[in-house]
Amino acid sequence: MKSVAILGCGVVGSGVARLFTDSAARIAKAVGEPVELKYVLERRDCSGEPWAGRVTEDFDLIESDPAVSVVCECMGGVGAAYQFVRRSLLAGKSVVTSNKQLIAEHGLELLELARARDAFLLFEASVGGGIPLLRPLTDELAANRIDEVFGIVNGTTNYILTQMIAHGKSFAEALREAQALGYAEADPSADVDGVDAQRKLCILTDLAFGSNVPPETVPTEGIGGVTAADVALAASLGCAVKLIAHAKSLPDGRFTAFVAPRLVPETAMLSQVSGVMNAVAVRGDAVGECLFYGPGAGSLPTASAVVGDAVDALRRVGRKYIDWGPEQPERFVHPDALPWRWYVRGRGALALPGAETVAAAGGETACLTGPMTRAELDAALHGREALACLRVLE
Amino acid sequence: MKSVAILGCGVVGSGVARLFTDSAARIAKAVGEPVELKYVLERRDCSGEPWAGRVTEDFDLIESDPAVSVVCECMGGVGAAYQFVRRSLLAGKSVVTSNKQLIAEHGLELLELARARDAFLLFEASVGGGIPLLRPLTDELAANRIDEVFGIVNGTTNYILTQMIAHGKSFAEALREAQALGYAEADPSADVDGVDAQRKLCILTDLAFGSNVPPETVPTEGIGGVTAADVALAASLGCAVKLIAHAKSLPDGRFTAFVAPRLVPETAMLSQVSGVMNAVAVRGDAVGECLFYGPGAGSLPTASAVVGDAVDALRRVGRKYIDWGPEQPERFVHPDALPWRWYVRGRGALALPGAETVAAAGGETACLTGPMTRAELDAALHGREALACLRVLE
Repeated sequence: MKSVAILGCGVVGSGVARLFTDSAARIAKAVGEPVELKYVLERRDCSGEPWAGRVTEDFDLIESDPAVSVVCECMGGVGAAYQFVRRSLLAGKSVVTSNKQLIAEHGLELLELARARDAFLLFEASVGGGIPLLRPLTDELAANRIDEVFGIVNGTTNYILTQMIAHGKSFAEALREAQALGYAEADPSADVDGVDAQRKLCILTDLAFGSNVPPETVPTEGIGGVTAADVALAASLGCAVKLIAHAKSLPDGRFTAFVAPRLVPETAMLSQVSGVMNAVAVRGDAVGECLFYGPGAGSLPTASAVVGDAVDALRRVGRKYIDWGPEQPERFVHPDALPWRWYVRGRGALALPGAETVAAAGGETACLTGPMTRAELDAALHGREALACLRVLE
Repeated sequence: MKSVAILGCGVVGSGVARLFTDSAARIAKAVGEPVELKYVLERRDCSGEPWAGRVTEDFDLIESDPAVSVVCECMGGVGAAYQFVRRSLLAGKSVVTSNKQLIAEHGLELLELARARDAFLLFEASVGGGIPLLRPLTDELAANRIDEVFGIVNGTTNYILTQMIAHGKSFAEALREAQALGYAEADPSADVDGVDAQRKLCILTDLAFGSNVPPETVPTEGIGGVTAADVALAASLGCAVKLIAHAKSLPDGRFTAFVAPRLVPETAMLSQVSGVMNAVAVRGDAVGECLFYGPGAGSLPTASAVVGDAVDALRRVGRKYIDWGPEQPERFVHPDALPWRWYVRGRGALALPGAETVAAAGGETACLTGPMTRAELDAALHGREALACLRVLE
């Protein structure tokens, strides 16, 4: 018999509790012995839930119970969650979490602590929700040099963009609809401004390139500036506008990472990812390109990843320790320093060098340029006002 | 220092040898110690290859060398490959293979043997080539009851269908082109008739539903009967014709599995999988639907999966043993006994019950019916000749 505890019983925590309760037989088979959900740390009333009898407000109880070998942190944030994860690891317990902010900001320190205590810190659920993604990246693709990781990691913004693409809605309309459906918060800034995607991209970059990337170093642009005109012009250029988190290595060992709305050619699988779904592509030197698609959020999908990690930690499978090294700022290249193809929207003829296609709507024109840096683009525009400049994903 | 051997140095084996040679540092880091490629079993001349000095024709040498802890079987077929895998496992060595025929036909016996000898038999590369798929299915999604697995697992037929869809080519034309490009064999029947997909589906079904499914029990239809007219009519119905391997559980614990050309709505990610690429969707009770996409064949992509498994076996990670139970024929339901929506092509008005959409081309009509079994469809046709009947994937 193994015992686990859940910290926080909100959307994700209640899904995890439900799986440990309803799927106990399947989990026991996977672990090789029964798994007891011993504690649920929560202040709110859980009466009526099957796990009501396990609820406690006292973290000390969990910390000091040697029977608890795995703690599932489902609180979110970096306040109490950080303290409790730290104390759990110090007590030699493995920790599984869906908390992207915690891992993006404190992952390096917490992974070192876990290793020192011979415990695991696993966080499959922190990027891409229920999609198996991080373990394939670190384990199944272990034979590969990872060259590039990019994708759609925020369902709220993808829902908004999908509504703009499919129904010609404005950003404001689509946002209001997403809020009405519960896909966006009353204060939508963490999603809309790209902060959530930025944290997830940090985790992907840490794992892919092996050195810590603090969130504040990652250039991040949200979708608030994307207009219905951009979406329509992109469509006439055979592309969809998507918020892309992108980490890419350079031949010299440096790398870039940034979050921005991008034009994605309709022939690419990523352009077909609609609504709140997520998808992440991985390019490796042996495998070529793989793509992992599925639900990026939600109670049970996220719980699926949390419990999958818990099963792994409970088996203590002599598993490879996940880790990455300290920040290496000298390796980080700002995306503005690299050449990209650009979508540029403006008034009148733009006539940019290498521009391949031109579309027009309501007196405006748009074109796709050849590869150039941001500075080269600004120089080529010499004073002409660009109403929008988005990089093309290739 | 750990030592491995490769059996067979053709397309896959040479990719595996190349990764063990060129990516030795990365593999050593993943395993935790250096890994030596000690033997390559091959009769053909390998002089000029970096591993030429390791080549032997003598399997006994490998079998009797206690230093070899993992054997990578890349020979194919069920003759010598079966004997050598069996003997390797009996000698307590773990085996990694890309051989779908071997696992589909002898997996049950070989997995039992592996477990008895405390060795691993891993075969990620046998389905979906380089795509991380089987380990996500068995490990990362361990908290899920798997309800359905379906997808495109044969690149040759997907290339042919893509050419028919994108360029209006006939089956014969597209096949000739695939042969000229090396995507199809001179005798293309194993791909075109669905035999390759059938073997892969058996492995997916074994893992998803936990009982052995012999290939000969799986109804299998190839793409030889798909016409340019079908592809065009499907497009006008908003669908693409794809060869789909499909395993689906029923509420009573039984399941069906079959390979057939199907109509896939253009809104589904699977419809966008083009050329030789593969993609498999997995539906679980917690996670919902995930999809895994990537290169389903090729030297280095397949080698990526073989070496990923080898790293796993070399770490001997106290890994969950993969297994499934004996065949349970009473659980297997023929797809004809289940209701599906059908695409029916014929001459003149078809007027089938529940038919939703009708398209017409050259005097022919096509419709999509409501859900009905094969017998119900035949009854509804009462004598009218159907030129094609394909199930719709939903």
